[in-house]
Amino acid sequence: MSHILIGLDEIRAAAAALPPQVRRTPLLPLVEELPGGGSLHAKCENLQQTGSYKLRAAFTALMRLSPEERARGAALSSSGNFAAAFAWAGQTLDIPTTVVMMQKTQPYKIERTRQMGARVVLCENRFEARFETLKRLASEEGLVAIDHLEDRSVLCGHGTVGLEIVEDLPDVEVVLVPVSTGGLLAGVAAAIQALRPQVEVLGIQPEGNDSTWRSLQAGHPVSVPEVQTLCDALTSTRPGNLPFAHIQALVSGIERVAETEIVRAVHWLADSAKLVVEPGGAVGVAHLRPWAGVPRLAGRKVCVLLSGGNLAPERLAGFLTCSQGKLPA
Amino acid sequence: MSHILIGLDEIRAAAAALPPQVRRTPLLPLVEELPGGGSLHAKCENLQQTGSYKLRAAFTALMRLSPEERARGAALSSSGNFAAAFAWAGQTLDIPTTVVMMQKTQPYKIERTRQMGARVVLCENRFEARFETLKRLASEEGLVAIDHLEDRSVLCGHGTVGLEIVEDLPDVEVVLVPVSTGGLLAGVAAAIQALRPQVEVLGIQPEGNDSTWRSLQAGHPVSVPEVQTLCDALTSTRPGNLPFAHIQALVSGIERVAETEIVRAVHWLADSAKLVVEPGGAVGVAHLRPWAGVPRLAGRKVCVLLSGGNLAPERLAGFLTCSQGKLPA
Repeated sequence: MSHILIGLDEIRAAAAALPPQVRRTPLLPLVEELPGGGSLHAKCENLQQTGSYKLRAAFTALMRLSPEERARGAALSSSGNFAAAFAWAGQTLDIPTTVVMMQKTQPYKIERTRQMGARVVLCENRFEARFETLKRLASEEGLVAIDHLEDRSVLCGHGTVGLEIVEDLPDVEVVLVPVSTGGLLAGVAAAIQALRPQVEVLGIQPEGNDSTWRSLQAGHPVSVPEVQTLCDALTSTRPGNLPFAHIQALVSGIERVAETEIVRAVHWLADSAKLVVEPGGAVGVAHLRPWAGVPRLAGRKVCVLLSGGNLAPERLAGFLTCSQGKLPA
Repeated sequence: MSHILIGLDEIRAAAAALPPQVRRTPLLPLVEELPGGGSLHAKCENLQQTGSYKLRAAFTALMRLSPEERARGAALSSSGNFAAAFAWAGQTLDIPTTVVMMQKTQPYKIERTRQMGARVVLCENRFEARFETLKRLASEEGLVAIDHLEDRSVLCGHGTVGLEIVEDLPDVEVVLVPVSTGGLLAGVAAAIQALRPQVEVLGIQPEGNDSTWRSLQAGHPVSVPEVQTLCDALTSTRPGNLPFAHIQALVSGIERVAETEIVRAVHWLADSAKLVVEPGGAVGVAHLRPWAGVPRLAGRKVCVLLSGGNLAPERLAGFLTCSQGKLPA
């Protein structure tokens, strides 16, 4: 199956259409001088309204609906961050929203989604069950089901993050992006490669869910049977077909990081960088820690995308107090 | 005693002289629409290098030393944040630094100061003992003692934060500033009042140390006998004379906040704003929480100065897990 990749014009159109509720998140220095040379910067989508980058795609996907579709309402499946963003954007645009979530979703994220105004429909703990439930809601209730894996407007919304990275750090050399469905990586890579083809865009996955890494090895999207990761935002058991086509064409590679390094990264970000970042958002820092560990990136200007900051306060406390190298309870 | 207040030219000169190691910290939206109208923004000096605004004054104070003075080395007394900043700036400028700290200082802050390259000299747990020890070091060892309460260059360094607030939020209406010696409030008020005389600059103190509030009531600097506050960055038992003169002339007032509200503010900043802010840096948010609580500020564009983010990870964990309204262990 061949896919037409999203283009710079589409991403720019999505950026121009973003409402003022979407924050222009800061691009901050994290470490001005890394031990082996080079510097580390962060695109802080954890500071985005609703706590993750997903708000961009939520607006992009909802705003393209016709008045008739808006009246029917829209549905999406999500592990949490897209859910909150979708609910919030729906409330802002006065579009009723329904979110399908797996029963095992963190109660914190379910509660946030409800607080932000969406109806939550729980489904069994199977990645594919989310899509089956979505399909049922579309046929039974007439909701507009948005397939976040394959929706072109979703990728364009994600791509707006890439535009801002290049605008705010024009001489960036390496960009590290968390990977679950691969959508964020695809959108960001499309924007950055169009503007700066020499920049290396790398995807980062936790060892507990390396489905896109495996897919790249296989040459086509494959599923992992089970996901065992602290990163509750990175639970997609397979990449989307459309994201995967972008990743094959535009991305330098996928790196995997150990779960214990992710704990250290969340800890370091709170303690040293004063930023609350959820485990799935911290995988880029986990890849670089300890700083001397990635000789290939030495001397280069690196930007990590901190994709989200939504973790329950008591869970963050666990990350702050567990012994280094251990996993929090 | 009359004091010549610092002027805009001096503050601008300090800003122009700041080295690139001092970060231009972001001014971020925290709440775009407050319940009673208006909006809340934050000047994020918790994201400053060394974790607090003190780095600006540390450079300003050290850079004005002559080559001969630099060779002798410089000394300062500090509760922690100025210590770390002073050590770091000294190491950057190749000036040996000594910091006098009270024995009760958080071990976390003592350790950080040493890690950043300063010698630490501990003194007894009396605010005035810090100055006595400083004096002794100056006479016995020939160190250049910087009196952070009365040093003009320190206030000018602090004032650079005020310049950036006005540059980045030109239509700001109210600025809330944490108060200990009053130096930060003095410097920020001097910059802002010179540029925007209509802006209301308010100082905020914890109930456990309201020395500057008492001083304003008395009409002259007074000491409080004892300080009992969670805000280990706000432990000065009296305002400096020079800062106090600025505060009398330029500031709309001092407000006091309950310690329990400070706990809620640290919690809210981490949970909702995804920012790690230490208790002393969170007093502005504590004053505004719950949002409907300050009718006088309703409908206005408010900026809180988040002055620092240095608290031990296990202490932050305590703030995140203690019951609302209780003080952490």
